[in-house]
Amino acid sequence: MTTAKRDTYTPETLLTVAVRIFNERGYDGTSMEHLSQAAGISKSSIYHHVAGKEELLRRAVSRAIDGLFAILDEPGAQRGRAVERVEHVVRRTVQVLVTDLPYVTLLLRVRGNTKTERWAMERRREFDHRVADLLRAAAADGDLRADVDTRLATRLLFGMVNSLVEWYRPHPGGGWEVDQVAETVVRIAFDGLRTADGPRAAG
Amino acid sequence: MTTAKRDTYTPETLLTVAVRIFNERGYDGTSMEHLSQAAGISKSSIYHHVAGKEELLRRAVSRAIDGLFAILDEPGAQRGRAVERVEHVVRRTVQVLVTDLPYVTLLLRVRGNTKTERWAMERRREFDHRVADLLRAAAADGDLRADVDTRLATRLLFGMVNSLVEWYRPHPGGGWEVDQVAETVVRIAFDGLRTADGPRAAG
Repeated sequence: MTTAKRDTYTPETLLTVAVRIFNERGYDGTSMEHLSQAAGISKSSIYHHVAGKEELLRRAVSRAIDGLFAILDEPGAQRGRAVERVEHVVRRTVQVLVTDLPYVTLLLRVRGNTKTERWAMERRREFDHRVADLLRAAAADGDLRADVDTRLATRLLFGMVNSLVEWYRPHPGGGWEVDQVAETVVRIAFDGLRTADGPRAAG
Repeated sequence: MTTAKRDTYTPETLLTVAVRIFNERGYDGTSMEHLSQAAGISKSSIYHHVAGKEELLRRAVSRAIDGLFAILDEPGAQRGRAVERVEHVVRRTVQVLVTDLPYVTLLLRVRGNTKTERWAMERRREFDHRVADLLRAAAADGDLRADVDTRLATRLLFGMVNSLVEWYRPHPGGGWEVDQVAETVVRIAFDGLRTADGPRAAG
């Protein structure tokens, strides 16, 4: 038996618990019963705050999506050469991803079984397309190498960035700082690991 | 009711079915009953070929692990400057990953609940360490930029490579060829997306 505690939740703090459980069990594998147990309050108390688990999912992925799209409106993403704008977007995407790690993790894991999940996937694709557009503009400016397919590069770039949800954990007092990770991603992706005067493979 | 078909499986062809189901349902979520239904043969027929589902897992992840470790013994990984050896290993890792996609997907998803899973994770870490060693050697040669942490670069590099299991699908008659993907990964990671004479961010 779970001892029910007094409901001191707000929709926001309840969301924190829900996102943790969604990430642990998967959204499909999470029932209202699981949420009730994890929060230590009754299901009817949860329904007092939200209409159901899909509303919690919508609020959670909205937070991640809003954070990502806000980047595109920043001055660094709006002004300057396309290559510098796309570097800004990649750097800030890493920062948003790390800052809102559980929310972005959830966003990256939704699989499209409900209307909310399909909407989230659609928005995510839209964000990817916006970044791909910037990469194409940078290639058209002659600032990106011409021997790399832009769409493939976009996939690989997001593959590198999104992998953070699998292995990056903020370590208080140790590990990598978010800005170091963001800067390293940008350096690898745009300038490469080799020193400028290092040997080049015959390729 | 499933209509049981005559058991024409070999351990190898049974493995193909098992790996597909493990990837669809997760290893933990797969029962012998699921395997029996997917293969269309009885559970006792399966036990005729293998001792149980853990043996199928061991065979499957061994195939992926053997494929990856074999790369390290290739001449391209043994001779030449460290930076060229690590480029060879990364290029070949992509090729092995794509060639044995379902097997490597399974390897990357095991989570350590059984002895076999823990062994697979240990071997995977060992492979990562071998590549990290090569990157460190290349950095010591002065061939890799000094302002990037080697351990962080290794994580990001594998993040990019391993993301392939999430989004790459071989398209007969379309899409990206495996060699193009492998070459693009190496170009991005080592030379970067920018043209050599493109502008550099102030950062």
